[in-house]
Amino acid sequence: MADHNALPLIILAEKFASLPGIGMKSAQRLAYHVMSMDTAAVEEFAQALVNAKKNVHCCSVCCNLTEREICPICGDAERDHSVICVVETPKDVTAFERTREYSGVYHVLHGLLSPIDGVTPDKLHIKELLARIAKGGIEEVIMATNPTVEGDATALYVAGLLKPLGIKVSRLAFGLPVGGMLEYADEVTLFKALENRNYI
Amino acid sequence: MADHNALPLIILAEKFASLPGIGMKSAQRLAYHVMSMDTAAVEEFAQALVNAKKNVHCCSVCCNLTEREICPICGDAERDHSVICVVETPKDVTAFERTREYSGVYHVLHGLLSPIDGVTPDKLHIKELLARIAKGGIEEVIMATNPTVEGDATALYVAGLLKPLGIKVSRLAFGLPVGGMLEYADEVTLFKALENRNYI
Repeated sequence: MADHNALPLIILAEKFASLPGIGMKSAQRLAYHVMSMDTAAVEEFAQALVNAKKNVHCCSVCCNLTEREICPICGDAERDHSVICVVETPKDVTAFERTREYSGVYHVLHGLLSPIDGVTPDKLHIKELLARIAKGGIEEVIMATNPTVEGDATALYVAGLLKPLGIKVSRLAFGLPVGGMLEYADEVTLFKALENRNYI
Repeated sequence: MADHNALPLIILAEKFASLPGIGMKSAQRLAYHVMSMDTAAVEEFAQALVNAKKNVHCCSVCCNLTEREICPICGDAERDHSVICVVETPKDVTAFERTREYSGVYHVLHGLLSPIDGVTPDKLHIKELLARIAKGGIEEVIMATNPTVEGDATALYVAGLLKPLGIKVSRLAFGLPVGGMLEYADEVTLFKALENRNYI
Protein backbone atom coordinates (compact mmCIF):
# COMPACT_ATOMS: atom_id res chain seq x y z
CA MET A 1 0.00 0.00 0.00
CA ALA A 2 1.23 3.46 -0.85
CA ASP A 3 2.17 5.93 1.87
CA HIS A 4 -1.15 7.76 1.65
CA ASN A 5 -2.71 4.69 3.29
CA ALA A 6 -3.35 4.49 7.00
CA LEU A 7 -0.41 2.81 8.77
CA PRO A 8 -2.49 0.36 10.88
CA LEU A 9 -4.09 -0.86 7.63
CA ILE A 10 -0.69 -1.38 6.00
CA ILE A 11 0.51 -3.34 9.05
CA LEU A 12 -2.63 -5.51 9.02
CA ALA A 13 -2.26 -6.19 5.27
CA GLU A 14 1.36 -7.25 5.86
CA LYS A 15 0.22 -9.68 8.56
CA PHE A 16 -2.30 -11.25 6.18
CA ALA A 17 0.32 -11.38 3.43
CA SER A 18 2.65 -13.33 5.74
CA LEU A 19 0.14 -16.23 5.72
CA PRO A 20 0.71 -18.99 3.15
CA GLY A 21 -1.15 -18.61 -0.15
CA ILE A 22 -2.16 -14.97 0.45
CA GLY A 23 -0.50 -12.42 -1.82
CA MET A 24 -0.18 -8.68 -1.13
CA LYS A 25 -3.22 -7.90 -3.30
CA SER A 26 -5.50 -10.34 -1.43
CA ALA A 27 -4.00 -9.19 1.88
CA GLN A 28 -5.02 -5.60 1.13
CA ARG A 29 -8.53 -6.74 0.23
CA LEU A 30 -8.76 -8.67 3.51
CA ALA A 31 -7.49 -5.66 5.48
CA TYR A 32 -10.17 -3.47 3.89
CA HIS A 33 -12.73 -6.16 4.66
CA VAL A 34 -11.75 -6.08 8.34
CA MET A 35 -12.55 -2.35 8.33
CA SER A 36 -16.11 -3.17 7.27
CA MET A 37 -16.58 -5.73 10.07
CA ASP A 38 -18.19 -4.95 13.45
CA THR A 39 -15.71 -4.03 16.18
CA ALA A 40 -16.98 -7.02 18.20
CA ALA A 41 -16.37 -9.40 15.28
CA VAL A 42 -12.83 -8.10 14.83
CA GLU A 43 -12.12 -8.54 18.54
CA GLU A 44 -13.50 -12.09 18.40
CA PHE A 45 -11.22 -12.83 15.44
CA ALA A 46 -8.20 -11.48 17.33
CA GLN A 47 -9.20 -13.50 20.39
CA ALA A 48 -9.60 -16.67 18.27
CA LEU A 49 -6.03 -16.24 17.01
CA VAL A 50 -4.58 -15.86 20.49
CA ASN A 51 -6.78 -18.63 21.95
CA ALA A 52 -5.88 -21.19 19.32
CA LYS A 53 -2.17 -20.52 19.77
CA LYS A 54 -2.41 -20.51 23.59
CA ASN A 55 -4.75 -23.44 24.21
CA VAL A 56 -3.97 -25.87 21.43
CA HIS A 57 -0.88 -28.05 21.75
CA CYS A 58 0.33 -31.53 20.89
CA CYS A 59 -1.49 -34.54 22.40
CA SER A 60 0.94 -36.11 24.87
CA VAL A 61 0.38 -39.51 23.22
CA CYS A 62 0.04 -39.05 19.44
CA CYS A 63 1.26 -35.44 18.92
CA ASN A 64 -1.96 -34.47 17.11
CA LEU A 65 -3.18 -30.96 17.94
CA THR A 66 -5.67 -30.77 20.80
CA GLU A 67 -6.75 -28.43 23.58
CA ARG A 68 -6.80 -31.33 26.07
CA GLU A 69 -3.93 -33.28 27.62
CA ILE A 70 -4.84 -36.35 25.53
CA CYS A 71 -6.73 -35.97 22.22
CA PRO A 72 -10.24 -37.46 21.79
CA ILE A 73 -8.90 -40.20 19.50
CA CYS A 74 -6.21 -41.37 21.94
CA GLY A 75 -8.74 -41.12 24.78
CA ASP A 76 -11.34 -43.25 22.94
CA ALA A 77 -11.43 -46.75 24.48
CA GLU A 78 -13.49 -48.02 21.50
CA ARG A 79 -10.57 -47.61 19.11
CA ASP A 80 -7.90 -50.18 18.38
CA HIS A 81 -4.82 -48.92 20.23
CA SER A 82 -2.60 -51.68 18.82
CA VAL A 83 -2.49 -50.13 15.32
CA ILE A 84 -0.80 -46.78 14.79
CA CYS A 85 -1.17 -44.84 11.54
CA VAL A 86 1.85 -42.51 11.15
CA VAL A 87 1.06 -39.28 9.27
CA GLU A 88 2.86 -36.05 8.47
CA THR A 89 0.34 -33.44 9.65
CA PRO A 90 -2.86 -33.07 11.71
CA LYS A 91 -4.64 -32.41 8.37
CA ASP A 92 -3.85 -36.00 7.37
CA VAL A 93 -5.61 -37.26 10.51
CA THR A 94 -8.70 -35.32 9.40
CA ALA A 95 -8.43 -36.92 5.93
CA PHE A 96 -8.33 -40.45 7.41
CA GLU A 97 -11.16 -39.71 9.83
CA ARG A 98 -13.30 -38.65 6.86
CA THR A 99 -13.06 -42.18 5.41
CA ARG A 100 -14.81 -43.49 8.58
CA GLU A 101 -13.03 -46.80 7.90
CA TYR A 102 -9.99 -46.56 10.16
CA SER A 103 -10.47 -47.52 13.80
CA GLY A 104 -6.85 -47.49 14.99
CA VAL A 105 -4.96 -44.54 16.44
CA TYR A 106 -2.51 -42.06 14.92
CA HIS A 107 0.92 -40.59 15.34
CA VAL A 108 1.65 -37.16 13.86
CA LEU A 109 5.29 -36.56 12.86
CA HIS A 110 4.77 -32.82 12.18
CA GLY A 111 6.95 -32.91 9.07
CA LEU A 112 8.91 -35.16 6.74
CA LEU A 113 12.62 -35.84 6.58
CA SER A 114 14.32 -33.34 4.29
CA PRO A 115 18.02 -32.93 5.10
CA ILE A 116 18.37 -30.14 2.48
CA ASP A 117 15.85 -28.02 4.42
CA GLY A 118 17.50 -28.97 7.71
CA VAL A 119 14.72 -31.37 8.74
CA THR A 120 16.67 -34.18 10.38
CA PRO A 121 15.06 -37.09 12.34
CA ASP A 122 15.39 -35.23 15.66
CA LYS A 123 13.11 -32.42 14.30
CA LEU A 124 10.23 -34.87 13.84
CA HIS A 125 8.18 -36.52 16.59
CA ILE A 126 9.87 -39.90 16.01
CA LYS A 127 11.20 -40.41 19.54
CA GLU A 128 7.62 -40.03 20.88
CA LEU A 129 6.60 -42.85 18.50
CA LEU A 130 9.45 -45.06 19.71
CA ALA A 131 8.47 -44.31 23.32
CA ARG A 132 4.87 -45.41 22.60
CA ILE A 133 6.11 -48.65 21.08
CA ALA A 134 8.53 -49.25 23.96
CA LYS A 135 5.50 -49.26 26.29
CA GLY A 136 4.27 -52.34 24.39
CA GLY A 137 0.89 -53.40 23.01
CA ILE A 138 1.54 -52.15 19.47
CA GLU A 139 1.09 -54.74 16.72
CA GLU A 140 1.21 -52.75 13.51
CA VAL A 141 2.46 -49.37 12.36
CA ILE A 142 1.04 -48.07 9.07
CA MET A 143 3.33 -45.54 7.39
CA ALA A 144 0.84 -43.12 5.84
CA THR A 145 3.16 -40.30 4.75
CA ASN A 146 2.59 -38.72 1.32
CA PRO A 147 3.68 -40.63 -1.82
CA THR A 148 6.53 -38.17 -2.45
CA VAL A 149 10.31 -38.47 -2.22
CA GLU A 150 10.30 -37.04 1.32
CA GLY A 151 7.27 -39.12 2.31
CA ASP A 152 8.86 -42.33 1.06
CA ALA A 153 12.22 -41.53 2.66
CA THR A 154 10.56 -40.83 6.00
CA ALA A 155 8.49 -44.03 5.77
CA LEU A 156 11.62 -46.09 5.03
CA TYR A 157 13.61 -44.40 7.81
CA VAL A 158 10.94 -44.99 10.46
CA ALA A 159 10.33 -48.54 9.21
CA GLY A 160 14.06 -49.20 9.60
CA LEU A 161 13.86 -48.16 13.27
CA LEU A 162 10.74 -50.25 13.99
CA LYS A 163 11.53 -53.52 12.20
CA PRO A 164 14.29 -54.54 14.71
CA LEU A 165 11.69 -54.07 17.49
CA GLY A 166 9.57 -56.83 15.92
CA ILE A 167 6.77 -54.48 14.90
CA LYS A 168 4.77 -55.17 11.71
CA VAL A 169 5.25 -52.11 9.49
CA SER A 170 3.09 -51.42 6.43
CA ARG A 171 2.89 -48.67 3.83
CA LEU A 172 -0.21 -47.25 2.12
CA ALA A 173 -0.90 -48.87 -1.26
CA PHE A 174 0.11 -47.02 -4.41
CA GLY A 175 -2.10 -47.34 -7.48
CA LEU A 176 -4.70 -45.61 -9.57
CA PRO A 177 -6.90 -43.08 -7.77
CA VAL A 178 -10.54 -44.22 -7.78
CA GLY A 179 -12.47 -42.37 -10.49
CA GLY A 180 -9.24 -41.47 -12.29
CA MET A 181 -8.55 -42.09 -15.98
CA LEU A 182 -5.80 -44.44 -17.15
CA GLU A 183 -4.71 -42.05 -19.88
CA TYR A 184 -4.03 -39.27 -17.35
CA ALA A 185 -2.12 -41.45 -14.87
CA ASP A 186 1.62 -40.68 -14.72
CA GLU A 187 3.98 -43.54 -15.59
CA VAL A 188 5.19 -44.14 -12.03
CA THR A 189 1.63 -44.49 -10.73
CA LEU A 190 0.72 -46.78 -13.61
CA PHE A 191 3.80 -48.92 -12.99
CA LYS A 192 2.90 -49.18 -9.29
CA ALA A 193 -0.69 -50.11 -10.20
CA LEU A 194 0.61 -52.86 -12.50
CA GLU A 195 3.16 -54.09 -9.98
CA ASN A 196 0.65 -54.23 -7.13
CA ARG A 197 -2.15 -55.78 -9.23
CA ASN A 198 -4.63 -57.97 -7.40
CA TYR A 199 -5.90 -61.26 -8.77
CA ILE A 200 -9.67 -61.40 -9.02
CA MET B 1 -13.22 -29.76 10.77
CA ALA B 2 -14.44 -32.96 12.33
CA ASP B 3 -15.18 -33.20 16.03
CA HIS B 4 -11.84 -34.84 16.81
CA ASN B 5 -10.22 -31.47 16.11
CA ALA B 6 -9.39 -29.01 18.85
CA LEU B 7 -12.26 -26.54 19.34
CA PRO B 8 -10.10 -23.36 19.37
CA LEU B 9 -8.70 -24.46 15.98
CA ILE B 10 -12.18 -25.00 14.56
CA ILE B 11 -13.25 -21.55 15.79
CA LEU B 12 -10.16 -19.92 14.25
CA ALA B 13 -10.73 -21.71 10.92
CA GLU B 14 -14.33 -20.45 10.90
CA LYS B 15 -13.10 -16.88 11.45
CA PHE B 16 -10.72 -17.18 8.49
CA ALA B 17 -13.50 -18.76 6.38
CA SER B 18 -15.72 -15.74 7.10
CA LEU B 19 -13.28 -13.52 5.17
CA PRO B 20 -14.03 -12.96 1.47
CA GLY B 21 -12.31 -15.33 -0.96
CA ILE B 22 -11.23 -17.83 1.70
CA GLY B 23 -12.96 -21.23 1.60
CA MET B 24 -13.17 -23.72 4.48
CA LYS B 25 -10.23 -25.71 3.10
CA SER B 26 -7.91 -22.68 2.94
CA ALA B 27 -9.21 -21.50 6.31
CA GLN B 28 -8.17 -24.81 7.92
CA ARG B 29 -4.73 -24.53 6.32
CA LEU B 30 -4.38 -21.00 7.67
CA ALA B 31 -5.50 -22.09 11.16
CA TYR B 32 -2.86 -24.85 11.15
CA HIS B 33 -0.29 -22.32 9.95
CA VAL B 34 -1.10 -20.07 12.91
CA MET B 35 -0.23 -23.02 15.18
CA SER B 36 3.26 -23.08 13.66
CA MET B 37 3.83 -19.35 14.23
CA ASP B 38 5.62 -17.89 17.27
CA THR B 39 3.30 -16.86 20.11
CA ALA B 40 4.61 -13.30 19.75
CA ALA B 41 3.83 -13.23 16.03
CA VAL B 42 0.28 -14.48 16.66
CA GLU B 43 -0.24 -11.82 19.32
CA GLU B 44 1.07 -9.13 16.94
CA PHE B 45 -1.38 -10.35 14.29
CA ALA B 46 -4.27 -10.18 16.78
CA GLN B 47 -3.14 -6.70 17.84
CA ALA B 48 -2.91 -5.56 14.20
CA LEU B 49 -6.53 -6.62 13.66
CA VAL B 50 -7.80 -4.72 16.69
CA ASN B 51 -5.57 -1.68 16.01
CA ALA B 52 -6.67 -1.31 12.41
CA LYS B 53 -10.32 -1.48 13.38
CA LYS B 54 -9.89 0.89 16.35
CA ASN B 55 -7.58 3.52 14.88
CA VAL B 56 -8.57 3.70 11.23
CA HIS B 57 -11.69 5.66 10.32
CA CYS B 58 -13.02 7.87 7.55
CA CYS B 59 -11.20 11.13 6.73
CA SER B 60 -13.55 13.94 7.83
CA VAL B 61 -13.16 15.56 4.40
CA CYS B 62 -13.01 12.84 1.71
CA CYS B 63 -14.17 9.71 3.63
CA ASN B 64 -11.02 7.78 2.63
CA LEU B 65 -9.66 5.53 5.40
CA THR B 66 -7.01 7.13 7.60
CA GLU B 67 -5.75 7.04 11.17
CA ARG B 68 -5.63 10.85 11.29
CA GLU B 69 -8.48 13.38 11.47
CA ILE B 70 -7.76 14.47 7.88
CA CYS B 71 -6.03 12.08 5.43
CA PRO B 72 -2.58 12.92 3.95
CA ILE B 73 -4.11 13.67 0.54
CA CYS B 74 -6.71 16.15 1.87
CA GLY B 75 -4.03 17.68 4.09
CA ASP B 76 -1.59 18.17 1.20
CA ALA B 77 -1.50 21.87 0.22
CA GLU B 78 0.36 21.01 -3.00
CA ARG B 79 -2.66 19.20 -4.45
CA ASP B 80 -5.44 20.80 -6.47
CA HIS B 81 -8.38 20.99 -4.08
CA SER B 82 -10.73 22.32 -6.78
CA VAL B 83 -10.96 18.92 -8.53
CA ILE B 84 -12.62 15.98 -6.76
CA CYS B 85 -12.36 12.44 -8.11
CA VAL B 86 -15.33 10.41 -6.79
CA VAL B 87 -14.56 6.70 -6.29
CA GLU B 88 -16.32 3.70 -4.80
CA THR B 89 -13.66 2.37 -2.40
CA PRO B 90 -10.34 3.31 -0.74
CA LYS B 91 -8.72 0.71 -3.05
CA ASP B 92 -9.67 2.90 -6.01
CA VAL B 93 -7.78 5.82 -4.43
CA THR B 94 -4.71 3.57 -4.27
CA ALA B 95 -5.18 2.67 -7.96
CA PHE B 96 -5.31 6.34 -9.00
CA GLU B 97 -2.33 7.25 -6.80
CA ARG B 98 -0.31 4.54 -8.57
CA THR B 99 -0.73 6.40 -11.88
CA ARG B 100 1.13 9.38 -10.32
CA GLU B 101 -0.76 11.56 -12.83
CA TYR B 102 -3.65 12.85 -10.75
CA SER B 103 -3.03 15.85 -8.53
CA GLY B 104 -6.57 16.60 -7.39
CA VAL B 105 -8.32 15.22 -4.31
CA TYR B 106 -10.78 12.36 -3.83
CA HIS B 107 -14.14 11.51 -2.39
CA VAL B 108 -14.86 7.90 -1.36
CA LEU B 109 -18.53 6.86 -1.56
CA HIS B 110 -17.95 3.50 0.20
CA GLY B 111 -20.29 1.67 -2.15
CA LEU B 112 -22.40 1.99 -5.27
CA LEU B 113 -26.15 2.45 -5.63
CA SER B 114 -27.88 -0.93 -5.75
CA PRO B 115 -31.53 -0.71 -4.66
CA ILE B 116 -31.93 -4.51 -4.95
CA ASP B 117 -29.27 -4.98 -2.26
CA GLY B 118 -30.76 -2.17 -0.19
CA VAL B 119 -28.00 0.32 -1.04
CA THR B 120 -29.92 3.55 -1.40
CA PRO B 121 -28.31 7.02 -1.77
CA ASP B 122 -28.44 7.66 2.00
CA LYS B 123 -26.17 4.60 2.57
CA LEU B 124 -23.37 6.20 0.52
CA HIS B 125 -21.21 9.19 1.53
CA ILE B 126 -23.02 11.47 -0.93
CA LYS B 127 -24.18 14.09 1.56
CA GLU B 128 -20.55 14.58 2.66
CA LEU B 129 -19.71 15.29 -1.02
CA LEU B 130 -22.56 17.81 -1.28
CA ALA B 131 -21.37 19.47 1.95
CA ARG B 132 -17.84 19.83 0.49
CA ILE B 133 -19.23 21.42 -2.65
CA ALA B 134 -21.52 23.72 -0.65
CA LYS B 135 -18.38 25.15 1.01
CA GLY B 136 -17.31 26.38 -2.46
CA GLY B 137 -14.04 26.31 -4.40
CA ILE B 138 -14.84 23.13 -6.34
CA GLU B 139 -14.59 23.43 -10.12
CA GLU B 140 -14.82 19.88 -11.37
CA VAL B 141 -16.06 16.53 -10.09
CA ILE B 142 -14.76 13.45 -11.93
CA MET B 143 -17.08 10.45 -11.54
CA ALA B 144 -14.62 7.55 -11.36
CA THR B 145 -16.90 4.69 -10.34
CA ASN B 146 -16.47 1.30 -12.07
CA PRO B 147 -17.76 0.86 -15.63
CA THR B 148 -20.58 -1.42 -14.43
CA VAL B 149 -24.35 -1.01 -14.23
CA GLU B 150 -24.13 0.08 -10.57
CA GLY B 151 -21.10 2.32 -11.26
CA ASP B 152 -22.85 4.05 -14.16
CA ALA B 153 -26.10 4.45 -12.23
CA THR B 154 -24.23 5.98 -9.27
CA ALA B 155 -22.28 8.31 -11.57
CA LEU B 156 -25.49 9.48 -13.25
CA TYR B 157 -27.28 9.94 -9.93
CA VAL B 158 -24.49 12.01 -8.37
CA ALA B 159 -24.04 13.99 -11.61
CA GLY B 160 -27.77 14.80 -11.51
CA LEU B 161 -27.34 16.26 -8.01
CA LEU B 162 -24.25 18.31 -8.92
CA LYS B 163 -25.21 19.74 -12.31
CA PRO B 164 -27.87 22.15 -10.87
CA LEU B 165 -25.13 23.50 -8.54
CA GLY B 166 -23.17 24.66 -11.59
CA ILE B 167 -20.36 22.15 -11.08
CA LYS B 168 -18.54 20.68 -14.10
CA VAL B 169 -19.06 16.90 -13.89
CA SER B 170 -17.05 14.43 -15.98
CA ARG B 171 -16.90 10.64 -16.30
CA LEU B 172 -13.86 8.44 -16.92
CA ALA B 173 -13.37 7.56 -20.61
CA PHE B 174 -14.50 4.15 -21.85
CA GLY B 175 -12.45 2.44 -24.53
CA LEU B 176 -9.90 -0.23 -25.22
CA PRO B 177 -7.53 -1.09 -22.35
CA VAL B 178 -3.93 -0.23 -23.27
CA GLY B 179 -2.08 -3.37 -24.32
CA GLY B 180 -5.37 -5.20 -24.96
CA MET B 181 -6.24 -7.06 -28.15
CA LEU B 182 -9.12 -5.97 -30.40
CA GLU B 183 -10.25 -9.56 -30.90
CA TYR B 184 -10.73 -10.08 -27.15
CA ALA B 185 -12.59 -6.81 -26.51
CA ASP B 186 -16.28 -7.29 -25.71
CA GLU B 187 -18.77 -5.62 -28.04
CA VAL B 188 -19.83 -2.89 -25.61
CA THR B 189 -16.22 -1.83 -25.00
CA LEU B 190 -15.53 -1.86 -28.76
CA PHE B 191 -18.65 0.19 -29.44
CA LYS B 192 -17.58 2.73 -26.77
CA ALA B 193 -14.08 2.85 -28.27
CA LEU B 194 -15.57 3.54 -31.72
CA GLU B 195 -18.05 6.10 -30.41
CA ASN B 196 -15.40 7.98 -28.43
CA ARG B 197 -12.76 7.83 -31.16
CA ASN B 198 -10.29 10.69 -31.28
CA TYR B 199 -9.20 12.34 -34.53
CA ILE B 200 -5.46 12.27 -35.03
